[in-house]
Amino acid sequence: MKKVSREARVSQGILHYYFADKRAILVAALGAVMDDLDARVRAAQARSGPDAAARLRALIEASLRTALEAREVWVVFVEFWGEMMHDDRLRAINAGLYTRMRRLIGALIRQGTRRGQFRPVEPTRAAAVILGLLDGVALQLTFDPEAFDVATATRFCQEALGRYLAR
Amino acid sequence: MKKVSREARVSQGILHYYFADKRAILVAALGAVMDDLDARVRAAQARSGPDAAARLRALIEASLRTALEAREVWVVFVEFWGEMMHDDRLRAINAGLYTRMRRLIGALIRQGTRRGQFRPVEPTRAAAVILGLLDGVALQLTFDPEAFDVATATRFCQEALGRYLAR
Repeated sequence: MKKVSREARVSQGILHYYFADKRAILVAALGAVMDDLDARVRAAQARSGPDAAARLRALIEASLRTALEAREVWVVFVEFWGEMMHDDRLRAINAGLYTRMRRLIGALIRQGTRRGQFRPVEPTRAAAVILGLLDGVALQLTFDPEAFDVATATRFCQEALGRYLAR
Repeated sequence: MKKVSREARVSQGILHYYFADKRAILVAALGAVMDDLDARVRAAQARSGPDAAARLRALIEASLRTALEAREVWVVFVEFWGEMMHDDRLRAINAGLYTRMRRLIGALIRQGTRRGQFRPVEPTRAAAVILGLLDGVALQLTFDPEAFDVATATRFCQEALGRYLAR
């Protein structure tokens, strides 16, 4: 708390007025970066049009671009994960978040399957695959920007998920 | 350091004799869990036989099982990642580790492609897909063991990667 108040140039009293403790700051930070990520994905999907395959491609590209354009998103995720490893309340918040993301991606899959764009798959499991690949590849981009670039990563993720969902 | 010496029931002097600082403990912990993960993957691949597709399946299953059987592996990874976000030396160690893993998985892909089991792919990029999916799904298993079980996760990852590499 002391370090945060110094960096933010506010008194510790003011900081404590808004945030009871370190956990409250972390929860607020997670909420803020999730809102940012959501807004980026929604904007990309608004541009891509209503087609499920195009919306999936937009999700992939927007998620991976954050690793470069909004590095703080992944810094906050990783800091939150480290803290939640010994904090059940934070872990419950994260589990809720992942359940929600799998449900959102699952709805996209279901739409694509209904329209005949994707093969029939169990939507929540397919969502776990998509979310897993995006998390894992975004982490590699965040950890080591020299390994490959966002455009390359977007291409190989779209190829992998395209093949996964192809009829 | 104080907390570690208390938990390990050794004096701070002894702890400082073996580890100069917190960073040195983290690096040693990462080395230990990587050795554990390597040994589990090698043992599974020794049982699976020399066939590239079977060795890939063994890699998938052994990696995902650690999320349940050796939870400390993922706890150490996540703690290490959190720390390295503001430590260039730790980040370089992690980048080296990921390069090595992509190279190892890339060699497996190359072998399978040569034998006609996998379609021709750029081995390092295919390795980034495989590593990304395994990291991402293992994180979901570690974060929320209620969401799906290891057997289910192994099945959907094998299906996704099987389709990705199918000729």
